[in-house]
Amino acid sequence: MAAATNFRRVYSGKKVLITGGLGFIGSNLARALVALGARVTIVDSLAPEYGGNRRNLAGIAGRVKVHIADVRDWPRLPRLVAGEDFLFNLAGQTSHMDSMTDPQTDLDINCRAQLAILESCRLHNPSIRIVFASTRQIYGRPDHLPVDEQHALRPVDVNGINKIAGESFHLLYSRVHGIRATALRLTNTIGPRMRVKDARQTFVGVWVRRLVEGEAFEVWGGRQRRDFTFVDDAVEAFLLAAAQEEAVGEVFNLGGPPPVTLRRLAELLVEINGGGGFVVREFPPERKQIDIGDYYADDRLIARKLGWRPRTDLRTALARTLEFYQRELRHYV
Amino acid sequence: MAAATNFRRVYSGKKVLITGGLGFIGSNLARALVALGARVTIVDSLAPEYGGNRRNLAGIAGRVKVHIADVRDWPRLPRLVAGEDFLFNLAGQTSHMDSMTDPQTDLDINCRAQLAILESCRLHNPSIRIVFASTRQIYGRPDHLPVDEQHALRPVDVNGINKIAGESFHLLYSRVHGIRATALRLTNTIGPRMRVKDARQTFVGVWVRRLVEGEAFEVWGGRQRRDFTFVDDAVEAFLLAAAQEEAVGEVFNLGGPPPVTLRRLAELLVEINGGGGFVVREFPPERKQIDIGDYYADDRLIARKLGWRPRTDLRTALARTLEFYQRELRHYV
Repeated sequence: MAAATNFRRVYSGKKVLITGGLGFIGSNLARALVALGARVTIVDSLAPEYGGNRRNLAGIAGRVKVHIADVRDWPRLPRLVAGEDFLFNLAGQTSHMDSMTDPQTDLDINCRAQLAILESCRLHNPSIRIVFASTRQIYGRPDHLPVDEQHALRPVDVNGINKIAGESFHLLYSRVHGIRATALRLTNTIGPRMRVKDARQTFVGVWVRRLVEGEAFEVWGGRQRRDFTFVDDAVEAFLLAAAQEEAVGEVFNLGGPPPVTLRRLAELLVEINGGGGFVVREFPPERKQIDIGDYYADDRLIARKLGWRPRTDLRTALARTLEFYQRELRHYV
Repeated sequence: MAAATNFRRVYSGKKVLITGGLGFIGSNLARALVALGARVTIVDSLAPEYGGNRRNLAGIAGRVKVHIADVRDWPRLPRLVAGEDFLFNLAGQTSHMDSMTDPQTDLDINCRAQLAILESCRLHNPSIRIVFASTRQIYGRPDHLPVDEQHALRPVDVNGINKIAGESFHLLYSRVHGIRATALRLTNTIGPRMRVKDARQTFVGVWVRRLVEGEAFEVWGGRQRRDFTFVDDAVEAFLLAAAQEEAVGEVFNLGGPPPVTLRRLAELLVEINGGGGFVVREFPPERKQIDIGDYYADDRLIARKLGWRPRTDLRTALARTLEFYQRELRHYV
C-alpha cells in the first residue's frame, strides 16, 4: 500500500476493535493493522454459517486479542468498545438466501445488533472512530450503471433491508450524537481467507474451491456483469476511511477493476488455474427472484475524497486467491 | 364516505384484524368497519406511552374482539393472523423523541415485530390482505415540495430508519412471497381519539388539550408548513387500499387540504375554539436536531390509482376534533 507510512503514524500503538475479525475482510484488516503496530482486538462469533475461521489469524494469532462473542450479546458490548480508538464494524450476516429463509436472524445481526453497538459507543466511548461494512446489496437492481452513492435504495431481499437500517444507524449516530462513523458499500470482495465452504459470502468462494478440488463449478446465468474488489484494496479503503476526517458521516462505494460477465470471470479463473471447467446453468427460481442482475460501482467519490482506488487487476486478484487456496484449502472446507 | 356501498360489499361479514386497534387511527378504522358489518378483532398492547385507549371503543365495545397483546410477543401472532381476511397493521411506536432516547424499543416494535407479523402471515395465512401504516417521517427533510413517493428516503431519526425497514418488509413479502400488502405513508393525522396526553403521537394533541383546559399552548418555531389529514379521510384510504387489487405492492402518500404554517394552524384553532391563546417558542435543541422543517405530501398517486382524496377541510377537521375533546377530554388525560 502506497499510503503505508501514513497508516503507521495513524495506527501504530492505537487500540483497534474489529467485529467479525476472524472473517474474510476482518482478518485481512487485522493482519494489516498488526503489521502497522496497532493493538488489535477481535470479536467474532465463529458461528459456523459465517465467515469466521481461526486459521485466518495464522502467523499473527499471538499478537491479537480474540473474544469469541456474538454482537447480539448486548451485555458484552460496553466492555468491548470501551477504551478503543477505532472500531471496524464488519460483523454481519451476508447470505441473501439465508436472509429470506431466516429473516429474523439477519435482522438481529445486521440491524438490531448494530444499534446496540452504536448505543454502547454513545454511552461508553463516544470518541471512538467507526467504519461500517455496508454493501451494494442495498441498491437492489440498478436503474443505471455504474451505480453511484445517490442511486435509489430498493433492496430485493431481507438482507438489503436490514443493511440499509444498519448503515443508516451509523450515519444518524454520526450526525446527531457525534459518533464519528463512515460507511463503505462493498461490492463483491475476493481474495485469500474468503469463505469457500459455500456461497454464503461470495459465489467466487465455491468456484475457487471446486477448481482447486479438480471439479467443475456451476455458473448461474453467466451474462451478469459484476465488479470485484481484491481484499487488500478493500482493507486499504477501511484504513483510509478511518484515518481521514473528511470521511466522517459519509458513505462511499468501493469498486474494482473494469467489470466482467460471470462467464468471463469463470473463463479467467480456469485459464489462470491452468485447467478445470464450469457448467453454465439457469438460476434456481428462489434465487432468481432476489438476483440483482448487472451491477458495478461508480467509486469516483472515494477516489476524489480519500484518494482510494482499486490497485489490483482482476487477473492478479484471482491468481493470488487461487494460489492461497491451493496451499490452504484443507483449513477452509 | 362516498364509496360506502362498495365498502359494504367488500367488508361485510369479513374477518378483519387491526393491530394498534385501540389507538387513534386503528379505533376510528374499527368503528368504520363495524358499521360496514365486518367482524373486527383488535390487537393492542395498551402500553401507556402509545395511543391505545379503551375509551376509543365507546359504543362499539360489544361488537369487536379485543386482545391485549404486544406485537413483540411473537408466539401469539400466528393464532391472531390465522383465518383473517384483512390485516390493518397500525401498531407502532410513533414518538420521534422516544426513538432517540430508547432506540431499541422503537426497533423492536417498528422493525422486528413487523417482520414477525409478516412471517406469521407467510406461514399461517398467506392469502391475507395487508395495509401497513407507514409515515412521512421516512423522507426526512424534503429536497422539494410537495414530496412524492419517489423522493429520496433520508430519515433524520431512529423512528424513520425503522419505519423504512418495516415498510420495506411489507413490500418485499408482497413481491417475493405473494403476501398482498400496501403501504400508506401518513402525514400528520388529526381528529377524535388522537392522543392528547402529550406530543408522542402528534403535537396537535397537546394543543387541543391545552385549549380545552383553558390554557395557552406552545408553538415551536411556527414557520414550518405542514399538511394535516383528518382521521376519517385516513380511514377511507385504508379501506380503499385494502379493497383494490391495483394497490397491491404499492406505496402511497396521504396528504390533506392545502398546507399551513404551524402558526396559522394555531390561530385557526384559537379562532374555532372562540378563545384561548398560544406562545411561540424556539425549538428545544434536541428536538431541532431531528425536525424535518416544511413538509407536505404530493398525494396525486393515490388520487389517480385509488380515487382517494382528502375530503375534509382543515377548519372542519379542527372543529370536529375540538368538539370531541370538549366532551371527552376527561377520558383522554
